Amino acid sequence: MTRPTALLASSLPVHAFRAPARVRFSDCDPAGIVFFAAWFVMANAAIEDWFTESLCVDFHALHSTRRIGTGFVHAEADFFAPGLMGDRILLTPLVTRIGGASYALCLHVHRGEQELARLHFVTATTDLDARRAVPIPDDLRAALGAYQERCAT
Amino acid sequence: MTRPTALLASSLPVHAFRAPARVRFSDCDPAGIVFFAAWFVMANAAIEDWFTESLCVDFHALHSTRRIGTGFVHAEADFFAPGLMGDRILLTPLVTRIGGASYALCLHVHRGEQELARLHFVTATTDLDARRAVPIPDDLRAALGAYQERCAT
Amino acid sequence: MTRPTALLASSLPVHAFRAPARVRFSDCDPAGIVFFAAWFVMANAAIEDWFTESLCVDFHALHSTRRIGTGFVHAEADFFAPGLMGDRILLTPLVTRIGGASYALCLHVHRGEQELARLHFVTATTDLDARRAVPIPDDLRAALGAYQERCAT
Amino acid sequence: MTRPTALLASSLPVHAFRAPARVRFSDCDPAGIVFFAAWFVMANAAIEDWFTESLCVDFHALHSTRRIGTGFVHAEADFFAPGLMGDRILLTPLVTRIGGASYALCLHVHRGEQELARLHFVTATTDLDARRAVPIPDDLRAALGAYQERCAT
Repeated sequence: MTRPTALLASSLPVHAFRAPARVRFSDCDPAGIVFFAAWFVMANAAIEDWFTESLCVDFHALHSTRRIGTGFVHAEADFFAPGLMGDRILLTPLVTRIGGASYALCLHVHRGEQELARLHFVTATTDLDARRAVPIPDDLRAALGAYQERCAT
Repeated sequence: MTRPTALLASSLPVHAFRAPARVRFSDCDPAGIVFFAAWFVMANAAIEDWFTESLCVDFHALHSTRRIGTGFVHAEADFFAPGLMGDRILLTPLVTRIGGASYALCLHVHRGEQELARLHFVTATTDLDARRAVPIPDDLRAALGAYQERCAT
Repeated sequence: MTRPTALLASSLPVHAFRAPARVRFSDCDPAGIVFFAAWFVMANAAIEDWFTESLCVDFHALHSTRRIGTGFVHAEADFFAPGLMGDRILLTPLVTRIGGASYALCLHVHRGEQELARLHFVTATTDLDARRAVPIPDDLRAALGAYQERCAT
Repeated sequence: MTRPTALLASSLPVHAFRAPARVRFSDCDPAGIVFFAAWFVMANAAIEDWFTESLCVDFHALHSTRRIGTGFVHAEADFFAPGLMGDRILLTPLVTRIGGASYALCLHVHRGEQELARLHFVTATTDLDARRAVPIPDDLRAALGAYQERCAT
């Protein structure tokens, strides 16, 4: 396994969305640093903000009203440096693949220029009531595609 | 036990600090509403923001550098109405008592005018290394007193 | 406010249910002790075990199949001593009140003879789909009453 | 990316350790299934039990007394099927690599014969006070090697 290399924040696409967050006391473990699973929770919150503020697809309505789930079939993280209590961080989501009933994201976590963590997710869209895969809804597909293009420029 | 009555947001002191927050997917339980323990975690985050932004006492430095703990000896919550995914809420802390080595807070959680939850905390200041009670540090005591006064006007 | 006094484990009713648990790394905060909100999560897990193993009312079926919620309208905790990573603890639930559409519990947390925390909950039974209060279901009411009696002897 | 295939529980090494766990109400999200980050928390708890009960290396003393951290530099999960409230599951850790200052684990999560999730972790051993990498302690290295051998038979 080759370890990926941390990227400077300024090397990310200018037009990508940045979700700000702050490392909380409750995110940290007895080692005084962010507990690894808390990075996943923060990433999920950043994805919610990205949906609503950048993709203009209401993440919560998608689940509660439209009953479309965006569950992960794969989640992965590389940790480059520890996050500390009070750290102000930025989470930058990038779309890496758009399939029929799934899409892949990469999420960079930076404190200033330093990349602390990088997460990868494969999301499968599902009918929450029938509990089976469904194609990515049209509005979400269009928004993901437009975002991917915007970040490529 | 008498149940307290929910208060309108506009009835709270004008000069009190308001910490904004958003109810996350991960805060909610299978009933689709905020899991009760998540209210306590959100309240703790609001207290961190209040320390840093309003009291001007760095919550994280207090713990990590100055090694003063602000652990709760009592925590209590009344739940008036469920919080839902995506809700934008405001958390308003009020100081209700300042003692020698402890102080008490009340924290109101509102969505618009509606109070969703009210929390009460008794905090004891401790030496984190010696694990014993210590008097409230002078800067924190002064800041708590000034805030309490500001809210009374 | 008067602080309650910690009780020895051996002073609790012999016939009460004890839910064993272990303090996890992820339950602990940068102060190296159990984060206060984690006590509430552990208490909720203990109540699930108590329902299923002692009351013989399936907690999960109650929510998912029967669509009865057991949400808290009040939750409260006194913390007597810190819990540490790896601690083996016992959680002992007691029924303190059975009303029409709500009941109250007290939950003692002990490590050996020492009481670390004591929690109080007021639970309202609700119809999860209609989101309104409903009377305590008959089987649950009978089980709560029988348990309360068993603990009184 | 090729998706891995779920394995039957009975195909895992007979001599591997199994950590039992139960899916809690608080592990589940508004979709009624285990929130993905909760799998990581459960896996961490299983690793604690495995250390203490199978490797005979006290996980908590390792961190609190010996000040050796076992932080993850990589964490990864494939999700095959949703976990439901109340599910009784078994978590089976396997050692996949032992390096100088890091080791890799694979953790299978089964409900009966069905694999629900599979997690991979790369752990780096660190000096918690100096915050730098240190060789795997001798007792832990020996225990990991012996376990790996035991599972190969």
